[in-house]
Amino acid sequence: MSDLPVFGAGIWHFATYVDRYATEGYGEPVGLLEQIDLAGSVGDLSVVDLNWPFAGFDGTTDDVKAALARNGLRAVAITPEIYNKDFIRGSITNPDPAVRAQAIALLHEATELALELGCDYVKLWFGQDGWDYPFQVSYRDVWKNAVDALRELCSAHPEIKFVIEYKPREPRNKIIFPNAARTLLAIQQTGCDNLGVLLDFGHSLYGLETPADAAQLCIDAGKLFAIDVNDNFRGWDDDMVVGSVHLVETFEFFHTLRANGWDGVWQLDQFPFREDRVQAAKQAITFLKAIHRALDALDEDALAQAQSRHDALAAQKLVQKVLLSSMADALDD
Amino acid sequence: MSDLPVFGAGIWHFATYVDRYATEGYGEPVGLLEQIDLAGSVGDLSVVDLNWPFAGFDGTTDDVKAALARNGLRAVAITPEIYNKDFIRGSITNPDPAVRAQAIALLHEATELALELGCDYVKLWFGQDGWDYPFQVSYRDVWKNAVDALRELCSAHPEIKFVIEYKPREPRNKIIFPNAARTLLAIQQTGCDNLGVLLDFGHSLYGLETPADAAQLCIDAGKLFAIDVNDNFRGWDDDMVVGSVHLVETFEFFHTLRANGWDGVWQLDQFPFREDRVQAAKQAITFLKAIHRALDALDEDALAQAQSRHDALAAQKLVQKVLLSSMADALDD
Amino acid sequence: MSDLPVFGAGIWHFATYVDRYATEGYGEPVGLLEQIDLAGSVGDLSVVDLNWPFAGFDGTTDDVKAALARNGLRAVAITPEIYNKDFIRGSITNPDPAVRAQAIALLHEATELALELGCDYVKLWFGQDGWDYPFQVSYRDVWKNAVDALRELCSAHPEIKFVIEYKPREPRNKIIFPNAARTLLAIQQTGCDNLGVLLDFGHSLYGLETPADAAQLCIDAGKLFAIDVNDNFRGWDDDMVVGSVHLVETFEFFHTLRANGWDGVWQLDQFPFREDRVQAAKQAITFLKAIHRALDALDEDALAQAQSRHDALAAQKLVQKVLLSSMADALDD
Amino acid sequence: MSDLPVFGAGIWHFATYVDRYATEGYGEPVGLLEQIDLAGSVGDLSVVDLNWPFAGFDGTTDDVKAALARNGLRAVAITPEIYNKDFIRGSITNPDPAVRAQAIALLHEATELALELGCDYVKLWFGQDGWDYPFQVSYRDVWKNAVDALRELCSAHPEIKFVIEYKPREPRNKIIFPNAARTLLAIQQTGCDNLGVLLDFGHSLYGLETPADAAQLCIDAGKLFAIDVNDNFRGWDDDMVVGSVHLVETFEFFHTLRANGWDGVWQLDQFPFREDRVQAAKQAITFLKAIHRALDALDEDALAQAQSRHDALAAQKLVQKVLLSSMADALDD
Repeated sequence: MSDLPVFGAGIWHFATYVDRYATEGYGEPVGLLEQIDLAGSVGDLSVVDLNWPFAGFDGTTDDVKAALARNGLRAVAITPEIYNKDFIRGSITNPDPAVRAQAIALLHEATELALELGCDYVKLWFGQDGWDYPFQVSYRDVWKNAVDALRELCSAHPEIKFVIEYKPREPRNKIIFPNAARTLLAIQQTGCDNLGVLLDFGHSLYGLETPADAAQLCIDAGKLFAIDVNDNFRGWDDDMVVGSVHLVETFEFFHTLRANGWDGVWQLDQFPFREDRVQAAKQAITFLKAIHRALDALDEDALAQAQSRHDALAAQKLVQKVLLSSMADALDD
Repeated sequence: MSDLPVFGAGIWHFATYVDRYATEGYGEPVGLLEQIDLAGSVGDLSVVDLNWPFAGFDGTTDDVKAALARNGLRAVAITPEIYNKDFIRGSITNPDPAVRAQAIALLHEATELALELGCDYVKLWFGQDGWDYPFQVSYRDVWKNAVDALRELCSAHPEIKFVIEYKPREPRNKIIFPNAARTLLAIQQTGCDNLGVLLDFGHSLYGLETPADAAQLCIDAGKLFAIDVNDNFRGWDDDMVVGSVHLVETFEFFHTLRANGWDGVWQLDQFPFREDRVQAAKQAITFLKAIHRALDALDEDALAQAQSRHDALAAQKLVQKVLLSSMADALDD
Repeated sequence: MSDLPVFGAGIWHFATYVDRYATEGYGEPVGLLEQIDLAGSVGDLSVVDLNWPFAGFDGTTDDVKAALARNGLRAVAITPEIYNKDFIRGSITNPDPAVRAQAIALLHEATELALELGCDYVKLWFGQDGWDYPFQVSYRDVWKNAVDALRELCSAHPEIKFVIEYKPREPRNKIIFPNAARTLLAIQQTGCDNLGVLLDFGHSLYGLETPADAAQLCIDAGKLFAIDVNDNFRGWDDDMVVGSVHLVETFEFFHTLRANGWDGVWQLDQFPFREDRVQAAKQAITFLKAIHRALDALDEDALAQAQSRHDALAAQKLVQKVLLSSMADALDD
Repeated sequence: MSDLPVFGAGIWHFATYVDRYATEGYGEPVGLLEQIDLAGSVGDLSVVDLNWPFAGFDGTTDDVKAALARNGLRAVAITPEIYNKDFIRGSITNPDPAVRAQAIALLHEATELALELGCDYVKLWFGQDGWDYPFQVSYRDVWKNAVDALRELCSAHPEIKFVIEYKPREPRNKIIFPNAARTLLAIQQTGCDNLGVLLDFGHSLYGLETPADAAQLCIDAGKLFAIDVNDNFRGWDDDMVVGSVHLVETFEFFHTLRANGWDGVWQLDQFPFREDRVQAAKQAITFLKAIHRALDALDEDALAQAQSRHDALAAQKLVQKVLLSSMADALDD
């Protein structure tokens, strides 16, 4: 069997959550260091993505480093919280120039932290940058502010990568980077080599894309810098455990990555609101290992033949066979 | 012009919100009495729907009564919080019998409060009762628990009405009462005359119903006890300001109510996350008054003629004319 | 292994298609007898559902009987074409009473044929009964016409069953029987014991239902008379090959049927527009046999335990294991 | 009032239709010349978009020219039928090189006709180019074939424009050009100045875009060559009459065009399956004239002010007022 990929997770996987109804939370708050320990207890995780500022944490960066170290974890990325409190009406596209400046300051700060921690990239997710109502904004102005700020940020830090995680909506009704192609256009306009895409499988799925096709598009542009996986029912970002619903399309997604020699982290972005968080990560990774094994077993020549004829039935037959056998084996382990 | 309807709002319209990203909130917390004062400042509201327990409020019921009185407001309903903290895995369908009992106790308590405040009904919204994953629950058991608990609750309080507010999903990926017809089946099975439906226009819209048709179905069953209005983009419960998107279908909804002599409260269920809450209510009511005026002006005979032929174009012509003229006039005021 | 179910298919599975763009068709027309021979060539099909009138066929019913006989097939149902040519503005809810009468006459005729062929039921699919535009129809009148006509039809033929196949939309933008619950309400109102539901897995899926839950609801009402299977991307009635996308939910659907001792036909309703039609049926049945085998292997006690706790992760673990192992074995065959 | 725009329509607006169920059609077939006469009878149409080959027509191009002339119409575009009969498995991305060549030959032929008729552009709609099932195609190969063919076609005819009409899906489950950004990327890769976008309002709406934002994106890229309008319920390409549902967003779309000085044809792409086709066009144009009048009346400075604050409520107030007043006036005419 080929070498296993590196597995990772957003550290929020091990937090507890609130939403607009359960305002008192889906569980008792969990501190950052405890979240890191929980991540460590999964056993197969090598890296985590950390939010900045460290939520509800008054310790030092050294405390964080120590917690990571004792769990055999590395920080692969920093995700600055440009969607909370101060930025509910936008970060780099906020109508108020002072808030835009504040957002950029926070992004610089997060970048410094990412450099200090030896991260691979800074993750930019613009959940509050967009609009909710018809006629609310000038689309040209919003877009221009976004591209200008990205150029300023990324060109100031050529020594590290930045990724945009696109998403159709939530919390904003419409987000400025809703799909892969639109995000690639923005990246082009910045002219920054160190700015790429983080493709979240679930965002792609409920955004009407075919995730494997979106991945191919980003790869061909040299811009697939990172990926996240989870699952959903195609209507919303449910952030369910990987493999809960879309077994075949998850396999197709990783097949495309392998076919292109893409060798980044297989990273979880799940929100187990009501589930045991460590167990949710473990089952996701078991499933991903089965996917990995199935990739080894797939008859690539036969598949290429079927695809050259656009023969859906032949391709499906090949795929079901290997996917299911390999998964059954993997689940035996 | 015919008499204006009574306007109302869920008191949460005047709160601030959190969600899973903006965990620090979309604004500073607003106390219950202040929320009532804000509702009063709208000017056109006569009634409000109050949550129980009173969130973050340590005053007395008399304080609440006084606040309502000084704002010329009446509590039309109590909405018990059977979807927070203790009930994140379900209220009356929780897998734990002790939690189910706790939920029912809370519901009885809320009913007592509703009686004390002279409310018209207790509103039951089962946002956490449902499932998230395939194979998670026994659908028969969940349904049976729901129907049994409803029967127990409603038959214990024949002196007041109860309403089920159905919704397709959120926060649960699937909610047990997702649409009008399913809710009517549950009500039948309870055998309780005092249990009916609250039809939320937005829930109906994004749940693939035609809201006016769903209203007619509930009316013909003698079960349309209450309604809420708001708007959305048809993919989610965006709880936008009434009339933001679906002008024609909002008009059709109220046309159906008028045609059936339905004379309940026109109640707002909006979540103005980033908007001025009082202004959001004012604009919604201005729009609703325009709808009301348009209903007076509509040529019912000509519409009935068009509908008897299923003539979409003739109906649309009549409706656009009167809707737009009346609204233009109303907005002049 | 428990006995295999009876497999069936709508005869249109073996036709060719047109749509609004490919008006010249997705292949050369295939005559009815040839369609029956193709169905026979699948090898695992025992029954077929036939349209009436026999499209583009000028032979006799005896010719059809002979074709069925030589292929070892039985007609399980007749599906009258109450959605073509004469009925594009509705069949039993057409605004024109003469067309409503014509529709009912056709339904009686189809029933006579079903009796002659020894069918189990007449299938009623009201694809053109509904509306396209706001304000187009009186929802009360449309509903009343539908219920009255159903009562008239079904009470005239107590010796055979009728089923309503519900569907959210297409070709009408909104269809009068869009989901299970609404259909059950209509059936109640007719008071006819011989009228039930045909649950199409794909219609349920893209209609926001959980198919297994919808099946349970119909079973508990004593009304699940028949089922169809296929697959889709949840946004439309794609009528893809079974098991293309929703492996887990297809398994859950059949698990619910088995748990209730439901023993009807496992029937295909696929539209292989661009695929080999016989091969599409074969692969679907191979998949369904794997599902059947997995049902034998599932640890029902352990699943019931997990479901009693609403434990999604435990249930998923059990299900993935048995589903994938059994399927891998079945595909070996 | 500012000058009215030029109004146009796809000639298929005046045809009759079939679909996969009503295979015998939604009306008697209508010949091409009769379609042109119907278009002429609308009264406000100046241009039409013609399909090639002329469906079911054995006359000459001169006959077509004469029919256009006698109705005061001009052919604004040719839409080659690269989605019918021969191309059901793709045109320029067909797996069979011979069919790809046939598609390109047809496109050249259509271009010659467009030149002969003095059209503004050739419209390319790739409804059959895409995929239906996971793993069916190599996304890279499909994309490459598409871009290469477009380059070949457009660079061979620098004297005329070509437009890609993007659409998320139908008839293919996934189409290669699903949204504005992806289409712009393809156009870039061809390097052809004479290739641009046709933005269909309805496709944009149900493809999760904000149509006004998509228009701005295309305009800023210098690529908004043409537009189509219609309406839908956001889940499918319903091709309803303009203004049936989305009054505000249609207004916003045309506001964006006006703000950018875009002065192309306002073109109808409606499918009035069950409606009078001439009346459907007339009512659409009445609505569009009202939109045009409302644009004259809108207080642009106040709107710009509101938008500079991202003030949804202020913007909505301005817009509702002017939209409704102007429309009410227009409908009086």
